[in-house]
Amino acid sequence: MSGTNPPDGGGSGSIRNNPDVRQRVLAPPKAGLLKDFKSVVEETFFHDAPLRDFKGQTPAKKTLLGIQAVFPIVGWAREYNLRKLRGDVIAGLTIASLCIPQDIGYAKLANLDPKYGLYSSFVPPLVYAGMGSSRDIAIGPVAVVSLLLGTLCQAVIDPKDDPDNYLRLAFTATFFAGVFQFGLGLLRLGFLIDFLSHAAVVGFMGGAAITIALQQLKGFLGIKTFTKKTDIISVMQSVFENARHGGKRNKKLFWVPAIAPLISVIISTFFVFITRADKQGVQIVKHIDQGINPLSYKKLFFSGKYFMEGIRIGGIAGMVALTEAVAIARTFAAMKDYQIDGNKEMIALGTMNVAGSLTSCYIATGSFSRSAVNYMAGVHTAVSNIVMAIVVALTLEFITPLFKYTPNAILAAIIISAVLGLIDIDAAVLIWKIDKLDFLACMGAFFGVVFVSVEIGLLISVVISFAKILLQVTRPRTAILGKLPNSNVYRNTLQYPDAARIPGILIIRVDSAIYFSNSNYVRERASRWLREEQEMAKEDGMPAIKFVILEMSPVTDVDTSGIHSIEELFKSLEKQDIQLILANPGPVVIEKLYASKFVEEIGEKNIFLTVSDAVAHCAPGLAEQQA
Amino acid sequence: MSGTNPPDGGGSGSIRNNPDVRQRVLAPPKAGLLKDFKSVVEETFFHDAPLRDFKGQTPAKKTLLGIQAVFPIVGWAREYNLRKLRGDVIAGLTIASLCIPQDIGYAKLANLDPKYGLYSSFVPPLVYAGMGSSRDIAIGPVAVVSLLLGTLCQAVIDPKDDPDNYLRLAFTATFFAGVFQFGLGLLRLGFLIDFLSHAAVVGFMGGAAITIALQQLKGFLGIKTFTKKTDIISVMQSVFENARHGGKRNKKLFWVPAIAPLISVIISTFFVFITRADKQGVQIVKHIDQGINPLSYKKLFFSGKYFMEGIRIGGIAGMVALTEAVAIARTFAAMKDYQIDGNKEMIALGTMNVAGSLTSCYIATGSFSRSAVNYMAGVHTAVSNIVMAIVVALTLEFITPLFKYTPNAILAAIIISAVLGLIDIDAAVLIWKIDKLDFLACMGAFFGVVFVSVEIGLLISVVISFAKILLQVTRPRTAILGKLPNSNVYRNTLQYPDAARIPGILIIRVDSAIYFSNSNYVRERASRWLREEQEMAKEDGMPAIKFVILEMSPVTDVDTSGIHSIEELFKSLEKQDIQLILANPGPVVIEKLYASKFVEEIGEKNIFLTVSDAVAHCAPGLAEQQA
Repeated sequence: MSGTNPPDGGGSGSIRNNPDVRQRVLAPPKAGLLKDFKSVVEETFFHDAPLRDFKGQTPAKKTLLGIQAVFPIVGWAREYNLRKLRGDVIAGLTIASLCIPQDIGYAKLANLDPKYGLYSSFVPPLVYAGMGSSRDIAIGPVAVVSLLLGTLCQAVIDPKDDPDNYLRLAFTATFFAGVFQFGLGLLRLGFLIDFLSHAAVVGFMGGAAITIALQQLKGFLGIKTFTKKTDIISVMQSVFENARHGGKRNKKLFWVPAIAPLISVIISTFFVFITRADKQGVQIVKHIDQGINPLSYKKLFFSGKYFMEGIRIGGIAGMVALTEAVAIARTFAAMKDYQIDGNKEMIALGTMNVAGSLTSCYIATGSFSRSAVNYMAGVHTAVSNIVMAIVVALTLEFITPLFKYTPNAILAAIIISAVLGLIDIDAAVLIWKIDKLDFLACMGAFFGVVFVSVEIGLLISVVISFAKILLQVTRPRTAILGKLPNSNVYRNTLQYPDAARIPGILIIRVDSAIYFSNSNYVRERASRWLREEQEMAKEDGMPAIKFVILEMSPVTDVDTSGIHSIEELFKSLEKQDIQLILANPGPVVIEKLYASKFVEEIGEKNIFLTVSDAVAHCAPGLAEQQA
Repeated sequence: MSGTNPPDGGGSGSIRNNPDVRQRVLAPPKAGLLKDFKSVVEETFFHDAPLRDFKGQTPAKKTLLGIQAVFPIVGWAREYNLRKLRGDVIAGLTIASLCIPQDIGYAKLANLDPKYGLYSSFVPPLVYAGMGSSRDIAIGPVAVVSLLLGTLCQAVIDPKDDPDNYLRLAFTATFFAGVFQFGLGLLRLGFLIDFLSHAAVVGFMGGAAITIALQQLKGFLGIKTFTKKTDIISVMQSVFENARHGGKRNKKLFWVPAIAPLISVIISTFFVFITRADKQGVQIVKHIDQGINPLSYKKLFFSGKYFMEGIRIGGIAGMVALTEAVAIARTFAAMKDYQIDGNKEMIALGTMNVAGSLTSCYIATGSFSRSAVNYMAGVHTAVSNIVMAIVVALTLEFITPLFKYTPNAILAAIIISAVLGLIDIDAAVLIWKIDKLDFLACMGAFFGVVFVSVEIGLLISVVISFAKILLQVTRPRTAILGKLPNSNVYRNTLQYPDAARIPGILIIRVDSAIYFSNSNYVRERASRWLREEQEMAKEDGMPAIKFVILEMSPVTDVDTSGIHSIEELFKSLEKQDIQLILANPGPVVIEKLYASKFVEEIGEKNIFLTVSDAVAHCAPGLAEQQA
């Protein structure tokens, strides 16, 4: 290409800098208001083009696709085979054995009878299996949401004084959690959960895990001093821990930690039963009602003071549950490389919780620990959730009486062991390395939960997440550019120390859209760069700055305030006999610069396609000298 | 420079694309955590380097600079001369003649006696003149804040039933408005007011103006049907309107509209007095207490239920007052090209309102109409505010009894005429042209105020402003790049229709920092671009895409979620046998890519300084073909 360079070209590779032939900065073709608006709506709500596959299909095919969209299991059914079934059954049995003891423990975190935990592992997974698009998630009650629901409901009704209304409140909250989840998905507002940053979630989960573990440990240790009989529990615990590590070391042994809890439960229950340790102070589960979920739709509050509380609690707990489920679904989808539609996922989760609230379940969502086991056990589709639900139902129908002698302490150990997996120290270290502000959010959420309460921790996470966004939009980065040696490439002088400044020219890059929230800052920052550079030039005996080139490649958009700011900068520079020059304004920006008549003001000849074109124009001598 | 191109160079102007000699993408020199943190704090709170002038000065000089920083008037005094004094006195007299009738009218908007309006034009301007940094702003009560304060206080206490407590609440709100303003300035949180977008302010002001005008017009028309004597008022009004237009046409006649209100008041008061029109139903001011501001510090609520209300009302009204004052100060500073320190300005405004609340004033701020007159009258420094304050004090001391017969209708006319200036149709039209979403914010605020209430209008402005920011950070723009003919410049194919795509290569530019709020969107959007391009390539019989180049120049930052997303994209592309390539990651980004070990994963050789380098690497044949 070098050969085709016109002789007047200053910088090769740049556009010819003769103003008559140089490529103009173009405004994009006019789209029209309605089309503009349509494209904004599409990108905001339908950026994944959910109806893409429906285009140009026959009505019959469209109907089938529609059914598949609502019930992904229909789509999977056509490719289902025995091999997949085997994987799903093994995975389902494994997560069932893990979920039964967890459910009994988690229900207590929510101040509910153990049976409600088991109920919540029956109906919701069945509904999800039909509607959900994740193949790896394991549905049921989870520790953090149970704790959150328990804490929030307890603040309204004391579960010991008024267990009936407490239960009704929990169901009402579950109902509205489902309604919120469903609504967010239907209105395609799923992106709202993106406002809980990853760092805040890591901190929140870690904090919640510590809180739960300490709470359980208290009970656990309390019993230990009570009777020596519980030594069996420490033994179980250490067996269990060893098993857990075995599973970590060898992937094929995934089932060892997965079924260890159930085995611990069985063995310890058996020991308590034959030694009658409960008579000597070992606290036991005592009684679990037999039979599957009774209907509970009559128990929901739809008026009165608990109605509003139910909406509030459901909203908070529903959002946290959603964040957890979507994070899990996305993680495994990325690992196996299939697509998750966040909005559809929310519709599935919402439906399942609404259905759950009518059948004596409390809020269910995706469980980190069980989903990981599910994945390792070789799950193929959500059929594993169906297998698990059937096992839980059979347990409820036939085996629950046997849990009578299960010691609470072993449940505590199982909970502790499950929640400790939520403490992701590696993630926290990585966050520290990558972004200090993120780490602050993480620690804020963590200490908020540990030292104050779950709600405060959650609030801190949200506030810090938002503060970060606001900081981002108020204080965008700016940089001074210099020319890399032997090239026409202009780069940040801080990043590339050998990038040379051009005498008499200041090149500033603004790294953000210029909006009302940062327009004043950008203008003032540019003035300050200029003032500092002028002083430096004076000291060094360099020529005074005569041109300020504003590299606008990263400026993706401006609004009215932004245009005002650029205009003010232009006028203020004019008074100091300095020419403002714009380089590479993007499509949206150039359109608005035309609309606001600013292009007329600054002159089309002062807008260039690249920085090197602009420099060639400002310092033609320099270009010749290099050529 | 073309001559110096190495023979192996694919694209001239790009860095040599031989991987051995090509310029590496550098991480910036390590700054260390503390320095990093310091720089974030500096840019957030001290981006204007307020202590810049203090560096390397003697202690005596530092003290003087310190005094000057708090009292800018000290700095001006040294350059003050008779010519400036003349300008300031003329301007001061002009704005005094405008403010006296306005004050009387505005006090009624706040449901207060007329004298409180005049009081508020005495103490606050004096305090501001000493501490403020704007030379053109005219301080005193303004229509919108008066209305807002009146509406908010009225909702708590009925001014007719309990005028004493109402007055105390107004003073308490003024006190806390001052405290908030002072606090924001002191903590250097002034940037918070940038969150009220220009568009929302235009809409809010316009709506408030219409509301006030209609309110006044009702009284105005009601009287007209009552007695023919008020015809004099219509006459005055038309005289006044004509004078106003005269002033607009000829800049030298600026004083005509400025003193027209006062003259109308004098003439109409005289007519009412000699005809005793008040006996025939013309409503008059009746009585204004003589004498300057009495102390009011004992009237503030510092406990009880009105205390909290005072804080709330003060917070809202204080923020609106601040927005107005800072907007005025910035506008005139930009016109005359001097610097305004927003944070110092807030400290001055806060001090002035705290002082005002102790001396029977309600919230004062910068007035649009009077500041414009001040500027046109040739003001030089804030001394004009002192002149105005003295005139107002003399008026309070000697002339107020004469206002007894001033007809309310003429005050209504003056208010209407003043607030109509707040309706900025040109600005609204410009906003419509530049940014449709801004226009929506503008109209939302406008109709909110007109059809619901001032508070709702304000709330709508804030919510829409925030929604805009959130939309910006969740749905960043992305673009497909193509090569401009005869160059190595890659640009948005939508903006430059002749930019050609490179077969087998997809170049995507992400126009924003990749944060938790948009990382999922960016990943999904990139996958969708790829899918669409692959389908298109298949249809057209073009080679399948083998490389995705992510142009990261506009990606100013990433956080943990952002890195996860890039990693997921990389892995998902790898599974489809497509290589992900990064072009020009900025300093912060490359540092984090190294910290997270992603550079090791993708390989340093797949990160390029420019898109054209990357293309030369992916399609060496193409480069040769062009060379």
